[in-house]
Amino acid sequence: MDAIFDKADSLDASDPLRAFRDEFALRDGLIYLDGNSLGAMPKRTPARMDRTIQQEWREGLITSWNAADWVNAPRRIGDKIAPIIGAGEGEVVVTDSTSINIFKALTAALSLQPERSILLTETTNFPTDHYMMQGITAFSGGRIETRSAAPEDVLDHLSDNVAVLLLTHVHYKTGRMRDMAAVTAKAQEHGVLVVWDLSHSAGAVELALGAANVDFAVGCGYKFLNGGPGAPAFLYAAKRHHEAMPVLAGWFGHARPFAFEEEYEAADNIERFLCGTPGILGMAALEEGVELMLRADMAEVRRKSAALGDLFIECMDGWAGDHSFTLVSPRDAGQRGSHVSYSHKDGYAMMQALKARDVIGDFREPDVMRFGLTPLYLSYRDMVEAAARLRSICESREWDRPEYKERAAVT
Amino acid sequence: MDAIFDKADSLDASDPLRAFRDEFALRDGLIYLDGNSLGAMPKRTPARMDRTIQQEWREGLITSWNAADWVNAPRRIGDKIAPIIGAGEGEVVVTDSTSINIFKALTAALSLQPERSILLTETTNFPTDHYMMQGITAFSGGRIETRSAAPEDVLDHLSDNVAVLLLTHVHYKTGRMRDMAAVTAKAQEHGVLVVWDLSHSAGAVELALGAANVDFAVGCGYKFLNGGPGAPAFLYAAKRHHEAMPVLAGWFGHARPFAFEEEYEAADNIERFLCGTPGILGMAALEEGVELMLRADMAEVRRKSAALGDLFIECMDGWAGDHSFTLVSPRDAGQRGSHVSYSHKDGYAMMQALKARDVIGDFREPDVMRFGLTPLYLSYRDMVEAAARLRSICESREWDRPEYKERAAVT
Repeated sequence: MDAIFDKADSLDASDPLRAFRDEFALRDGLIYLDGNSLGAMPKRTPARMDRTIQQEWREGLITSWNAADWVNAPRRIGDKIAPIIGAGEGEVVVTDSTSINIFKALTAALSLQPERSILLTETTNFPTDHYMMQGITAFSGGRIETRSAAPEDVLDHLSDNVAVLLLTHVHYKTGRMRDMAAVTAKAQEHGVLVVWDLSHSAGAVELALGAANVDFAVGCGYKFLNGGPGAPAFLYAAKRHHEAMPVLAGWFGHARPFAFEEEYEAADNIERFLCGTPGILGMAALEEGVELMLRADMAEVRRKSAALGDLFIECMDGWAGDHSFTLVSPRDAGQRGSHVSYSHKDGYAMMQALKARDVIGDFREPDVMRFGLTPLYLSYRDMVEAAARLRSICESREWDRPEYKERAAVT
Repeated sequence: MDAIFDKADSLDASDPLRAFRDEFALRDGLIYLDGNSLGAMPKRTPARMDRTIQQEWREGLITSWNAADWVNAPRRIGDKIAPIIGAGEGEVVVTDSTSINIFKALTAALSLQPERSILLTETTNFPTDHYMMQGITAFSGGRIETRSAAPEDVLDHLSDNVAVLLLTHVHYKTGRMRDMAAVTAKAQEHGVLVVWDLSHSAGAVELALGAANVDFAVGCGYKFLNGGPGAPAFLYAAKRHHEAMPVLAGWFGHARPFAFEEEYEAADNIERFLCGTPGILGMAALEEGVELMLRADMAEVRRKSAALGDLFIECMDGWAGDHSFTLVSPRDAGQRGSHVSYSHKDGYAMMQALKARDVIGDFREPDVMRFGLTPLYLSYRDMVEAAARLRSICESREWDRPEYKERAAVT
């Protein structure tokens, strides 16, 4: 055990990202392995919020739409996210929730494929991705069909009647990462447009949407971008698709919102993917998270994310099998995003017991324990320590208490 | 002029709402007549935001979804808005933007009217209301038709092929207020469901959605509810319509969101109108605004709103005609919501000149100056003073400067 702590300390000593830990307001002692669900708070965020609230809202009032540039926040923050995901200027906006943006991306893609009728995804995709497709199908009155295929077979279902393929880049449960460029190219061979859900990717792994010729993508502001609880999401549309119609035609997506015209004319750029009035408080917090992320080298972030995961798996390897854990994430870091998951029939109770030991991860039904890897604020020692505490919990069976087995509203 | 100031002071002295002014962080001297566009900041909001950010996000991290009850914020705040609009418990949720909620309400109403194909509204309605309808029509592939009729004729277009009537209760430009109960009843005689847009009503005028047998309604958090810039919006659906399908089927609207099932099964209550993960920072600020509003007697709010408008019109009456102003709001307070509008061909420049004199209202194309009446933080003296400054600006022609004529991005 000592050897692996030494290894961790040595990795920490040479970690080029270690200074970022001090940019986050995380309590000492806590090992936070849930940044893939809600990112930690950057230390600068409260001051930014205070400025937005006290100077912009209180003092500036309505004039801040111009004076504090609130009106351009969706585009401005989108342009800051662009380099993090390998997109170009003017291809990303921050707006609405990931679910709403999935709807927009799917319907926009459908508008470009009037002869095709199938929305394709994989079983086991994040539920909201399925649900938004099902909502479109229901509303289409039979015109649009939703089809789910097993993850390993989904590409076999590409055909000239598939309009859109919706896939999550890094799987929310297993952490399995898709080859974005290869999948996109394969789909495009069939004339299929691809919508990538980057919820578990943006800010965690290197992305090159432009180089991979991606059509559309959506992503989450509150996970690895550290934008705060329920932060607004983002939407990417390749410039070539800025003629597509996202259905949700709100006034902020109009070519001239403040002309108050009655006929909808979509903006001829990424802003057509906006809808209602942007939520400025959420935008402000997100912008701080994004700016912090922008200071990190994404190649280093990715490298560390892989190494954190490898180290955690190494720590688990010696004993976890004996305690009936099964690794459900790819062992190969090249196929794994930024979390490591194990299944265990008592996973829920174990995760509660871990929380009592100041290690926070999360649980996904029916039996998956997720450990999120956030390179900006986790150390290698954190990984070893977390695994050691989990082992101790197993060996002592301290997870086997009734209070750890009662499901809360949010697991 | 002195007489009317005396009258104002006397009205202020007996104003039962006057203590509310001290609950808002408004700079002395400023006369803020734009609370119908962005409400002023309640003094308690910064402490609430600090708690949400520092205790709930920073300290509680992911556990705050349960521990700080984030997960129930949409429903909890909805239930607080309910008495302000005369709705019942479990009939209102806070979620998304007004535009998105218009889409949900319209499509939910359509789901209840499978035999009908027309969405009806009035010309001059707020643009986003038109646009959302047009988006639905475009996506429906011709199945759903959007029809706009002149405001005075719109009820003549009710027929047994109209599925939904979408009307704004208080008109964004003129302030004209519809008779909600009468219009709803008339529409229902034709089997038409009504969606009311309450953006300029909620928190400003008395509303009795239950008593008026309203089907659906949407409203805005950032105007009279003082929820902050781009605050989340709300959606009301009468209990009898909780079977309706709003198309935007996101995971927070599922019957069991944290079971992560792949088939969408809408919650059997108002929560089916939720979609993605709620934006907690925006929710927190809105909750403070709503709680403050809850302390006011809405009958008093309405009475004062009418009286503020009457007084302003009285101040304008003696001279404004000579300076080519035309009152575009109803003179009768019973038909007027909570703003008073005048048209003037140089209205834009005049509004800028007023801002330079510390009176903030706003302008709507092509020539409308809006003066918003917020009974919680405006005094009667404010109204007289604002009119006096406008008169002075006209008499001195100080609005006639090039810098006042340059349109900003947001007017």
